Amino acid sequence: MPDGTLIADSIETLMDGIGRRAKAAARRLAGATTDEKNAALFAMASAVEARAPDILAANSDDLARARDAGMAASFLDRLTLDADRVAAIAQALRDVATLPDPVGAVMDRWTRPNGLEIARVRTPLGVIGVIYESRPNVTADAGALCLKAGNAVILRGGSDSLASSAAIHGALQEGLRQAGLPEDAIQLVPVPDRAAVGEMLKGLSGAVDVIVPRGGKSLVARVQREARVPVFAHLEGLCHLYIDRAADLAMARDIAVNAKMRRTGICGSAETLLVDRAVAGTHLRPVLEALAAAGCEVRGTDEVRALYPAAVPAGEEDFRTEYLDAIISVALVDGVEGAIAHIARYSSHHTEAIVTADAATAERFLNGIDSAILLHNASTQFADGGEFGFGGEIGIATGKMHARGPVGVEQLTSFNYRVRGTGQFRP
Amino acid sequence: MPDGTLIADSIETLMDGIGRRAKAAARRLAGATTDEKNAALFAMASAVEARAPDILAANSDDLARARDAGMAASFLDRLTLDADRVAAIAQALRDVATLPDPVGAVMDRWTRPNGLEIARVRTPLGVIGVIYESRPNVTADAGALCLKAGNAVILRGGSDSLASSAAIHGALQEGLRQAGLPEDAIQLVPVPDRAAVGEMLKGLSGAVDVIVPRGGKSLVARVQREARVPVFAHLEGLCHLYIDRAADLAMARDIAVNAKMRRTGICGSAETLLVDRAVAGTHLRPVLEALAAAGCEVRGTDEVRALYPAAVPAGEEDFRTEYLDAIISVALVDGVEGAIAHIARYSSHHTEAIVTADAATAERFLNGIDSAILLHNASTQFADGGEFGFGGEIGIATGKMHARGPVGVEQLTSFNYRVRGTGQFRP
Repeated sequence: MPDGTLIADSIETLMDGIGRRAKAAARRLAGATTDEKNAALFAMASAVEARAPDILAANSDDLARARDAGMAASFLDRLTLDADRVAAIAQALRDVATLPDPVGAVMDRWTRPNGLEIARVRTPLGVIGVIYESRPNVTADAGALCLKAGNAVILRGGSDSLASSAAIHGALQEGLRQAGLPEDAIQLVPVPDRAAVGEMLKGLSGAVDVIVPRGGKSLVARVQREARVPVFAHLEGLCHLYIDRAADLAMARDIAVNAKMRRTGICGSAETLLVDRAVAGTHLRPVLEALAAAGCEVRGTDEVRALYPAAVPAGEEDFRTEYLDAIISVALVDGVEGAIAHIARYSSHHTEAIVTADAATAERFLNGIDSAILLHNASTQFADGGEFGFGGEIGIATGKMHARGPVGVEQLTSFNYRVRGTGQFRP
Repeated sequence: MPDGTLIADSIETLMDGIGRRAKAAARRLAGATTDEKNAALFAMASAVEARAPDILAANSDDLARARDAGMAASFLDRLTLDADRVAAIAQALRDVATLPDPVGAVMDRWTRPNGLEIARVRTPLGVIGVIYESRPNVTADAGALCLKAGNAVILRGGSDSLASSAAIHGALQEGLRQAGLPEDAIQLVPVPDRAAVGEMLKGLSGAVDVIVPRGGKSLVARVQREARVPVFAHLEGLCHLYIDRAADLAMARDIAVNAKMRRTGICGSAETLLVDRAVAGTHLRPVLEALAAAGCEVRGTDEVRALYPAAVPAGEEDFRTEYLDAIISVALVDGVEGAIAHIARYSSHHTEAIVTADAATAERFLNGIDSAILLHNASTQFADGGEFGFGGEIGIATGKMHARGPVGVEQLTSFNYRVRGTGQFRP
């Protein structure tokens, strides 16, 4: 594997070759049986376990370089592998093997008056490009999900985790080999050059069908801005929780604390709390006190601070900010219509939740908001492919095309129509 | 309405305003009831009938200008309206009203072990841009399909049909008004400048969710090349018909003649005939004689010409050509695998058909080819939303994302997830 950086011309040549090989592998994978794909996934898991010492040694090298470069503790944590994390990578590969194979599933089937039988059948998408940052486990997770859906994948991990990713990638290729599937089904860009990302975003001469960025906002923003192929992504998860006049107070409090504080750094954590003015007198303070007791900084409008003086003043910018931290912005609104209006203005179209005992109000909220996931009487932290029963996800998408919400193996497929006749021709 | 051309700066301002108004209308339409949308469609149909004299007068003006400009007879035919065609436009609007409303339909529904009920529900896509050429009826057809799916639409018709389209558009707006829906739900770009297309392809500051080009190859190619938003389209329909060794000869002959000759100018017409070498001696000549008798020029490889000397020599380029005319290219292949290999090399991923009595061979063909529509023992000319039972189509897509194959009202929708709980929070 080349180790240093290459000049731009060589990168283009390198990446075009990767694209061509991925496309060839995708054709073979489209015809792979469920047994072949699962055999590869189980063999990958065994290879990851067998190669654990090599993987950990490579990770030590990455970590040493990152420490020398003065990277932050949170970065080093994301980069770090240990025996437990390697075991979890192997287990995740086995978990993907146990998922139903989406390819070949009949999505719809109907018969026309002329006797033609039409079926809409899931097919692989083709070639998926995954661009991620420092977490080495994404190499295995993304590779496995793409393979299960019959796709070839081109992985471009962060330069800081290249040795770790390459070691894991070696185990994946061993699994593919053992199952008789092409090694090019899962390729890892072997150089750290940023120009490789640019080539992927251009689509590698039509070889790449979709790009999935996994990482921070600046990576996603670059991908969304520059990609000439479709992208499955969310730029941010500015999720709202609305407590309606008909909300049970205890339920509202429990959901608010969970939606914000269970994990503050994930895209499904609530960033803004909206409370119905009609129950501000009864519901606002207990909910905010529970959030504060859980360690959350509360930022409120003047109205909120009048009822809960401990709140920090919230400015317009707070309602546009995805804190990804133990901070929440709070505003009062006029019932569900006020909540819908606020969310239409500030939402990132990811996930929003309402707490109410009024079924009609809940339906109005669920029908009136254009976000990927809408919840009634449940925490925003359920915005997750695993929690949806998808058995894993490669990310969450906020675009309205093809995949929206959690992107699992089914969302990594396309479909076509199979029409069966008995000699029909069109009059 | 401005009549002349505008400078580029004004076009940008004009189009941005159209985009903003479309987005505002889309928000209102997303909450429109089925009754409101259908009332608008019926009122539009009545308005088209009531305004038929104005529409025909505007069309006469367009035709006079086109004749003065020396346009071809086929162009003039596409542009021409008469009383029957106006009546057909009104009927098409009523037909769309009778289609089921896709918005709000539950696509999937399941319950998680923790009691969360998850439903995947169809929602409008948002704002659709339709760019078309000289057929004025597209104004009504595209406007109606987008409205039924709860979308706002921005129509950009050919400059040669602007007066006709504007007259029809006036009737559509009258229908929207009568139903209490915003007139901005269906906007027509009121100027002929090509720069307006460029602005639409850039997405009008994020207002446009998808572009649908309706027209010839050069229009579609420009849209696919320049669009910064998703496109539903096919560049060409280079459709294949494969006659297998297990084909019934009479069925093969009837399907071949229909697939090529029923209408030669549509995207679903067959352009290449592949015949299994194993039955070349029995099947080739009768099929080609039937095609020739129907008025088709047959172009064949040397092998084909040895068995059917009347064939014109076919070069490599013939197998890459969508004739859209009474011409067919013919080659021999080694069974279904040979057909799959030929199609993988030359196909435009639109529609391919096999004639065979062997079920296993048919399944291999249907599973082995990456095209939007695959048919067994049926004519390629069934590649049509109406024939699929979609009740109309805005086009046929060959991309693998979101919509593939015929694009009807269902394909003009997105979806989101509605999660109903009883106070669940995530452990």
